[in-house]
Amino acid sequence: MPEPINAAFSDYLTRCQQRIEAALPALLGQAGSEFCDGDAQQALSRLFDAHRYALLGGGKRVRASLVYATADALGVNQNIDAALDTLAAAVEMIHAYSLVHDDLPAMDDDDLRRGQATCHIAFDEATAILVGDGLQSRAFELISDCPSIPADTRLAMVRLLAAASGPRGMVGGQAIDLEAVNRELDLNGLQTMHQLKTGALIRAAVGLGALAGGASADQQQQLDRYSRAIGLAFQVQDDILDVESSTETLGKTQGADLARNKPTFPSLLGMAGAKALASELDQQAQSALAGFGESAAPLRALSRYIIARQH
Amino acid sequence: MPEPINAAFSDYLTRCQQRIEAALPALLGQAGSEFCDGDAQQALSRLFDAHRYALLGGGKRVRASLVYATADALGVNQNIDAALDTLAAAVEMIHAYSLVHDDLPAMDDDDLRRGQATCHIAFDEATAILVGDGLQSRAFELISDCPSIPADTRLAMVRLLAAASGPRGMVGGQAIDLEAVNRELDLNGLQTMHQLKTGALIRAAVGLGALAGGASADQQQQLDRYSRAIGLAFQVQDDILDVESSTETLGKTQGADLARNKPTFPSLLGMAGAKALASELDQQAQSALAGFGESAAPLRALSRYIIARQH
Repeated sequence: MPEPINAAFSDYLTRCQQRIEAALPALLGQAGSEFCDGDAQQALSRLFDAHRYALLGGGKRVRASLVYATADALGVNQNIDAALDTLAAAVEMIHAYSLVHDDLPAMDDDDLRRGQATCHIAFDEATAILVGDGLQSRAFELISDCPSIPADTRLAMVRLLAAASGPRGMVGGQAIDLEAVNRELDLNGLQTMHQLKTGALIRAAVGLGALAGGASADQQQQLDRYSRAIGLAFQVQDDILDVESSTETLGKTQGADLARNKPTFPSLLGMAGAKALASELDQQAQSALAGFGESAAPLRALSRYIIARQH
Repeated sequence: MPEPINAAFSDYLTRCQQRIEAALPALLGQAGSEFCDGDAQQALSRLFDAHRYALLGGGKRVRASLVYATADALGVNQNIDAALDTLAAAVEMIHAYSLVHDDLPAMDDDDLRRGQATCHIAFDEATAILVGDGLQSRAFELISDCPSIPADTRLAMVRLLAAASGPRGMVGGQAIDLEAVNRELDLNGLQTMHQLKTGALIRAAVGLGALAGGASADQQQQLDRYSRAIGLAFQVQDDILDVESSTETLGKTQGADLARNKPTFPSLLGMAGAKALASELDQQAQSALAGFGESAAPLRALSRYIIARQH
């Protein structure tokens, strides 16, 4: 059994969430007054409304919190502190874009996300496609435009996030996921899919925090081991919740994977096996952080939170 | 009447096209052997096939040619020459992604592109969405990973291309375009739409060439004036061809805009007015290059080519 989330971490997570929610609107920006034509301006305003709807619709902000917590584990200096908002926002924009596109009728065809109508339901399909596209561009624009981070580091960050997002990362995982419907994906295939689909971006979030915090090569390796473990744990827990939670708690359609006959960790390992795997991955994550001191407490708690969360 | 395209330019354009076609496959890459699981590997191979289908399906490569021709106009040094392939490829990837997404049923719903089935017809809708997403990521990854360009310049390039692609650029233009169906967009609105939808990426292509070639601030301004003029001219000519050409010559469905009741330059200005505007924009482009010598001959010819092309 994972130990309960303690109050200090609960406060930490709330602070991370509040911090990123406060930073996101300005970092997303809005349709500028340089486009002040009637119908054209209306269309752009609506497009930005849809961007905001997709990006600011809440969510647990696990990826943003990982950026902050990784930097904290490294004892980040104050000069780089504001830049963390930019990095956290960039990761959340990539994540939000992936959700908007995943929910499209041609993909997972979901009407509900975080307890609200998905972007293509609240607006329309074409707008949802454009919102995803626009959020992706904006993420890279933001990182490239963040002057408090040294140029070489910023480039490494763009490279890291782009590779994690692309066909060798998240997009590749989504492609495997689509093919997996009604197929016999084995445990290895399922893990590969999730390492790409969810894991790549979680690793990138930790990787961005590590680059911002000036991690040594050793520390980068340890943090990467940590992030690989929690990335997979995140998905194992998602699969568990897909079976055990109600639609109301989940904020998205319960049992959706099962209904689509998609392979899941509980379907391959049984529920007890899936829970054991989640615990084992938490252990791996904890041991990867053995070389870090008290400053890594939030990262340690985040790993426990990931496998204990109920939505 | 525009003067005919001369043989020297025709050779130049062919060399640019051959150069980018040769460079693109390696720069796109393929599903690595690190994902060597049965079904998962199959899904990734298919995803990369679809990327190749969308990216390597020919096209005029105007944007790639603009990168090369701008660098040539500035007398680019040999050190940066290989990097031009990367920049040209990045712009072509953004362009290809935008076509794949524009052609989707929820957007323009086109079955034909460059004389071939569009990506969602040749593969499926979900794959086409992912291909667009993946091509965009890859474009930014490539630029960030191009060591022969100084770090600060590379960052400026990422910023430039990302801003041009996003909701204040190409994606914004597409949003206006979608709202324009069955609406009375006036000439101003139509120009704003095209400046964003097509113009932003054409400006970015010239801007990337200018950054690579080390243009002075003055030269950057002149080249930007040039690119604004040809970007709009490109769309005016597209609208003219949509009325005048056959589907066979065009390689996409003829009369598609008219059928959708979209405003076009011929519909707002008449055919003669649209042709006069195209010529005037070419004049603007030529005069913007007045300060450049013989090395800008390809850029000058490209402007004439844009308004003289038949497809």
